[in-house]
Amino acid sequence: MKRKPYIIGIDLGGTAIKTGIVSFSGKLFHHETNPTNASAGRKTVLKNIIAAVESTLTNSGITQKHIFGIGVGTPGLPNKNGTIITGAYNIPGWKGTPLGQVLRKKYHLPVRIENDVSAVTLGEATWGAGKGFKHIICITLGTGLGGGIIINKNLYRGESGYAGEFGHMVIAAGGEKCTSGVAGGFEAYSSAFAITRIAQEKTKGKRISSILKTALLPENHPQQVKMIFQAYQQGDRLAHSILQEFGYYLGIGIATLVNCFDPERVIISGGIAQSGQVLLSLMQPAYIAHLLPFHKKKKKIVLGKFDNRAGIIGAASLIMRQYTTP
Amino acid sequence: MKRKPYIIGIDLGGTAIKTGIVSFSGKLFHHETNPTNASAGRKTVLKNIIAAVESTLTNSGITQKHIFGIGVGTPGLPNKNGTIITGAYNIPGWKGTPLGQVLRKKYHLPVRIENDVSAVTLGEATWGAGKGFKHIICITLGTGLGGGIIINKNLYRGESGYAGEFGHMVIAAGGEKCTSGVAGGFEAYSSAFAITRIAQEKTKGKRISSILKTALLPENHPQQVKMIFQAYQQGDRLAHSILQEFGYYLGIGIATLVNCFDPERVIISGGIAQSGQVLLSLMQPAYIAHLLPFHKKKKKIVLGKFDNRAGIIGAASLIMRQYTTP
Repeated sequence: MKRKPYIIGIDLGGTAIKTGIVSFSGKLFHHETNPTNASAGRKTVLKNIIAAVESTLTNSGITQKHIFGIGVGTPGLPNKNGTIITGAYNIPGWKGTPLGQVLRKKYHLPVRIENDVSAVTLGEATWGAGKGFKHIICITLGTGLGGGIIINKNLYRGESGYAGEFGHMVIAAGGEKCTSGVAGGFEAYSSAFAITRIAQEKTKGKRISSILKTALLPENHPQQVKMIFQAYQQGDRLAHSILQEFGYYLGIGIATLVNCFDPERVIISGGIAQSGQVLLSLMQPAYIAHLLPFHKKKKKIVLGKFDNRAGIIGAASLIMRQYTTP
Repeated sequence: MKRKPYIIGIDLGGTAIKTGIVSFSGKLFHHETNPTNASAGRKTVLKNIIAAVESTLTNSGITQKHIFGIGVGTPGLPNKNGTIITGAYNIPGWKGTPLGQVLRKKYHLPVRIENDVSAVTLGEATWGAGKGFKHIICITLGTGLGGGIIINKNLYRGESGYAGEFGHMVIAAGGEKCTSGVAGGFEAYSSAFAITRIAQEKTKGKRISSILKTALLPENHPQQVKMIFQAYQQGDRLAHSILQEFGYYLGIGIATLVNCFDPERVIISGGIAQSGQVLLSLMQPAYIAHLLPFHKKKKKIVLGKFDNRAGIIGAASLIMRQYTTP
């Protein structure tokens, strides 16, 4: 029998299906992005996932006989067979989809499905910024704020699979509501959603620079956070004030996680993490101020290694972890 | 060789040394309280611990040949040999004490030393309110607020042994400072210390009932929280207002823990837990309001089983867990 050295990793999102070919050492050989078309319903999404896999095989020039298995990170919570057992806010009707069964039937390969944030966490733990550590906290900073917990090198799921919902830790009692309606939740202060809110509050009735004005135009919504970071780095004072408030709460939330979990590493992943070191410097003062004294000597906070490919690589790690010891 | 069916459990505090004889099924046969005399220094404390053990053996009528081992819950953080590697605010000079070595040399028995809050957590997990569950969060509500984490039936310690410092989760950014100087920490809002602060704030310049006035007298300080709970149960309106504020933040902090850890049980132990069901009813509204929707159907919060003996029984559980599978 021939060696099968590759894994297909699938990062399923509400807008895009990102797919890639990943080696057992976590190297990404080829990746591409195809539309999810989530609003068209479950059947279309399943069809689009398979189309994305086919396209990835064709475009990479790697044939299926070299593929060992398929890993998927999905919105919502899948069970062990890969059936989605909860709703997913960005894919209507996704609950109940037997995604694992569909892929196994189509490809006759090992298939592992995991929640998308959990997949990113496992990818960073296996091949990325958490490699070699036993206890890791991962947060994904995007539109919302998600999290994953690695304890003794394994994903800690909790009783029902919901462990790691750090976006809904209360850090500001009586404060802003997050997407789940929890008042004062971390996500309501540290996410793209939060940056938009803070920007609206801080610019209301103020004279703002043209760069910030452009960032806040509705049509620039998907790039908004990136543009506010650009304005910040160009010295824009309002952008500075907006991101300082965001960084203050981010530092508080991460200090809280370190005080609770005493992890070896906290990894920050997700879209906002792509702003790089500036993100760490923004959170640093509040982080240090809210940390227990005995944690202050250790550098624990790092950016994820895989940027916008963390979802694909994380999904592939599900297969790798199933068959080897990381 | 004769069967050795008993364990000595030692709960070392800044004021008192509580000792007891515990069976391998967690039954407490005899217990007593002796003074620590912490201010007299390490040597005196060690002498007093041994005197307490001797007294316990004499008073219980159980001889040393029936003792299998000695477990101790201590302030501060011990290493595996039972040497205290951190300071303990309530026993000056405790850092560096080779407590395990001293007890082993004296009694030639297995000795296990653990942080006091960790011991309580393990006791509840082994024989108490957490028995049979895999994932447990325990909080101890006393002068301060401590915590312990059980994952997959084992104590989760984190990188350096500091995991579970829930008193220093930030739940009210920019708020009151806790003992470690963390602004807005859980402990600053939910502890005996916090109740005293809230009582001072809420009674300032107000006409207060004689029962509350008595509770707030400096000489009643050790009983203060108990007396405020009594005033509450007698319908005192200010006591109601004080404890509602306390319960609000307690509910928020516990909801945060459930959202993060998705545990099977949250156990509330410590002095304030002895106020019983009224404590759960005080926290319930804020707890439910800040919980993620999928947690709302499950009853997860329980009081510890062992009241003011939780420390002794927890210390004994250290030996039991070392030699049997709970």
